[in-house]
Amino acid sequence: MIPYKTIIQFDRNSKQALYLQLANQFIILIKDKKLLPSTKLPGSRTLASLLEVHRKTVVACYDELLAQGWVESISKKGTFVHADLPELYQKEKQVLDDEFKSNSAGFQFYTDKKLERKSPKLQEGFMSLNDGVSDVRLTPIIDLARIYRRISGRKLIYKEMSYGSLFGNEKLRKTLSEYLNKTRGLNTTISNILITRGSQMGIHLSAKLLLQKEDVIIVGETNYTSADTSFLQQEAKLLRVPVDENGLVISKIETICKEQQIKAVYVTSHHHHPTTVTLSAERRIHLLNLSKTYNFAIIEDDYDYDFNYQYSPILPLASHDTNGNVIYIGSVCKTVAPVFRVGYLIASKEFVNEAANQRRFIDRQGDALLELTFEEFIKNGDLDRHIKKVMKIYKQRRDLFCKLLIDNFSDVFQFEIPKGGMAVWVKLNKKYSWKKVTEIAKINKLNIGDWQRYDNAKIGHNSIRIGFAAYDEKEIYELMNRLFKTMKEIRNDNF
Amino acid sequence: MIPYKTIIQFDRNSKQALYLQLANQFIILIKDKKLLPSTKLPGSRTLASLLEVHRKTVVACYDELLAQGWVESISKKGTFVHADLPELYQKEKQVLDDEFKSNSAGFQFYTDKKLERKSPKLQEGFMSLNDGVSDVRLTPIIDLARIYRRISGRKLIYKEMSYGSLFGNEKLRKTLSEYLNKTRGLNTTISNILITRGSQMGIHLSAKLLLQKEDVIIVGETNYTSADTSFLQQEAKLLRVPVDENGLVISKIETICKEQQIKAVYVTSHHHHPTTVTLSAERRIHLLNLSKTYNFAIIEDDYDYDFNYQYSPILPLASHDTNGNVIYIGSVCKTVAPVFRVGYLIASKEFVNEAANQRRFIDRQGDALLELTFEEFIKNGDLDRHIKKVMKIYKQRRDLFCKLLIDNFSDVFQFEIPKGGMAVWVKLNKKYSWKKVTEIAKINKLNIGDWQRYDNAKIGHNSIRIGFAAYDEKEIYELMNRLFKTMKEIRNDNF
Repeated sequence: MIPYKTIIQFDRNSKQALYLQLANQFIILIKDKKLLPSTKLPGSRTLASLLEVHRKTVVACYDELLAQGWVESISKKGTFVHADLPELYQKEKQVLDDEFKSNSAGFQFYTDKKLERKSPKLQEGFMSLNDGVSDVRLTPIIDLARIYRRISGRKLIYKEMSYGSLFGNEKLRKTLSEYLNKTRGLNTTISNILITRGSQMGIHLSAKLLLQKEDVIIVGETNYTSADTSFLQQEAKLLRVPVDENGLVISKIETICKEQQIKAVYVTSHHHHPTTVTLSAERRIHLLNLSKTYNFAIIEDDYDYDFNYQYSPILPLASHDTNGNVIYIGSVCKTVAPVFRVGYLIASKEFVNEAANQRRFIDRQGDALLELTFEEFIKNGDLDRHIKKVMKIYKQRRDLFCKLLIDNFSDVFQFEIPKGGMAVWVKLNKKYSWKKVTEIAKINKLNIGDWQRYDNAKIGHNSIRIGFAAYDEKEIYELMNRLFKTMKEIRNDNF
Repeated sequence: MIPYKTIIQFDRNSKQALYLQLANQFIILIKDKKLLPSTKLPGSRTLASLLEVHRKTVVACYDELLAQGWVESISKKGTFVHADLPELYQKEKQVLDDEFKSNSAGFQFYTDKKLERKSPKLQEGFMSLNDGVSDVRLTPIIDLARIYRRISGRKLIYKEMSYGSLFGNEKLRKTLSEYLNKTRGLNTTISNILITRGSQMGIHLSAKLLLQKEDVIIVGETNYTSADTSFLQQEAKLLRVPVDENGLVISKIETICKEQQIKAVYVTSHHHHPTTVTLSAERRIHLLNLSKTYNFAIIEDDYDYDFNYQYSPILPLASHDTNGNVIYIGSVCKTVAPVFRVGYLIASKEFVNEAANQRRFIDRQGDALLELTFEEFIKNGDLDRHIKKVMKIYKQRRDLFCKLLIDNFSDVFQFEIPKGGMAVWVKLNKKYSWKKVTEIAKINKLNIGDWQRYDNAKIGHNSIRIGFAAYDEKEIYELMNRLFKTMKEIRNDNF
């Protein structure tokens, strides 16, 4: 008999029942060939007294091993390691000891380099430039959690808790449809709306439905990198058109359309990502007309519709779309907080249906409790109040941010004051390079991040996007201070 | 001058500001060519008095139109419709009136028939068979919402509210890793865990990483339909092996491996979906050994690990995997409630990293607040208490359900009492057809659903899966009563 008493150890603090701990150790002994097939196991009384456990524990363990098929019970003879277990490789144990091996997959899988992103951990005491995110400290999180809690306490809430609609909660779709019709001039009904997990899922689903290998999609020469990647994932062909102070140059799209069939145009019409400019009215109409003539889709990603500091926001392309050419994508992630993954895709009923079919096989459905929370938040006017509140704050931050940029960096940075959004498009004097700035900034505890991602087309514009909305006044001063120290060194270095 | 007073209407109850309502109506007039390019607009005083609004409203409206580029202001002359607006098609208005057209996309997109599912709306007073879902009325929703509310009130919670980890909340990954190591004998660290939106996302990501066109994956002759579809979406080749009372017939997999390279085997080892049988210990070892020899992945979908009514659950294949061959997928959706889309994919670090890269372009990230809620729920022991509670109830329901099946339907239905899970695999006497049963059931207000989906391979087993866990005692009696009436008619019909 093997020395059970020494080999078998119990962890009395473990959550796992003793008999299960015992069974698992037997399994390891069997797999490691410490216990060979047909070996007789000790009687339950013997083992119990050896291990100082209750006999019932051993009986339960043997029952478990029996149920799992590791052992067999031979009438009047006792319990034996199953005679018919297949060959177990001795190598196993060695492999376990080899950390590299045990962390690695024992099979081949496909990897995709273009999906990789640099995202270094932010070191203690560092500040980081972002690309235009909201200040989540302003999110009315307590109000939202209170609504969530209240909704969860409703008597009939269990009806929303099982497998539900692929399209998202019906109440939210209705409220959202009314809200967007009123505030953005859309002309939707509930059947035009799919609730997504934020804009990214809208882009992903649109890409899947529109693009297959070699299909052509037009994007800006500068463009939102994640959109580029989503289209490339479908093996689509990206054609780039220039972006000027009025947005995408639509006449170039017309030239392309005359030469070849395109499937779609991706546009961030309200504030072009990354350059922040607005697509002009003339170009809007031109683009809509082209889409009708040449039967392509316009993916309108209206990621920061809510933030416009001059006049009220310009209505989306989707509000003038009479032919079903626009797929309109938005979310509350940017407006409220990224943690709330609630967005929408708005398009013709047929397109929305197909997108929902695809969605079933991605994540099945959304989170009805969170969706109902936002339904109330929108319907109560809380969302509008929140927007009004943060708009005022972001406008002040933009003004301070831009003033400091002008006052301190007019020789090195060139930019237009953005009319909306949460970021400034900053062009560095061509005498200098972002590579160098990034290096020096690190010494001043300022993390600039991956500046190269703003120039996927490699046109050498020497610009990056810098968000201002997430910093309060004090932080903006501190950020500018670090940037100032950095640029001082850069200037000295260069002359 | 066109009759502005009659044409322009205000909705005083609308949320939309008056000046915006006015601006949007001007845009329509311009697009409809009621106002042609270069037309002079009335002065703000004139229009204000005509429409009985404040002059400021008209000024704001004109500013808006100016900002959007629809009009131009000519010094000392006034405001004019922009001279350079491109040709607007007269057709537009007609198209709007055509409901079919206005609901349809103005472009081509790809559709995929295999993604379609029948899901008819349940009529009033009907009961519906399901395929093994939990009873969400037993979910401790108030406790969960309370945790959610408490977490949301934490002082530093804003740190979790912006863009976060692609892998899911780190605290949950740590707690889950410890929990699964202790209760399921896994050997994971945090770097092996990706938090998903339920099992479906785990299957989706695995399929994406493992399968491309013509790659071979092995599944059961009967199999979970959504998994089949996910693999087919990747254009993989599905090879099917038989499933008997001990689960997948692994020797058939060996035969296939000797002939060709396979990429993966999909297995629901704990309770085969749909037939509910458990993969035997011998076959488990055999499958693990084959995966090592032939370098393929095992996708182990442990969708209902928590529910086993005999002994404690059998440990997953993943707990015996020493070579990194198993991708282990699970979720809390089945255990707690489908509305909570929290699941996990467990695999080698490299596989998990690549899955996270893919995930960025699907939905960016999970819901950190919900993930933290479940972190507490698991850590506090609430999850285990919940499982213990519902296990007892589900066992009673299984026993009643099966007893009534035996007592009333022994001539028409054949089944094994399932050792775990939430469903019974019921074979109909070959004299009868589910098509007919489904028809007659409808008359008795019983919806049987899509019975065909259980036989994707068309082997004609004449069986379907019937869930018992979601019904309480009274409902089980009522269900059986309707089924009894149905089968009575079927029997009478047949003799």
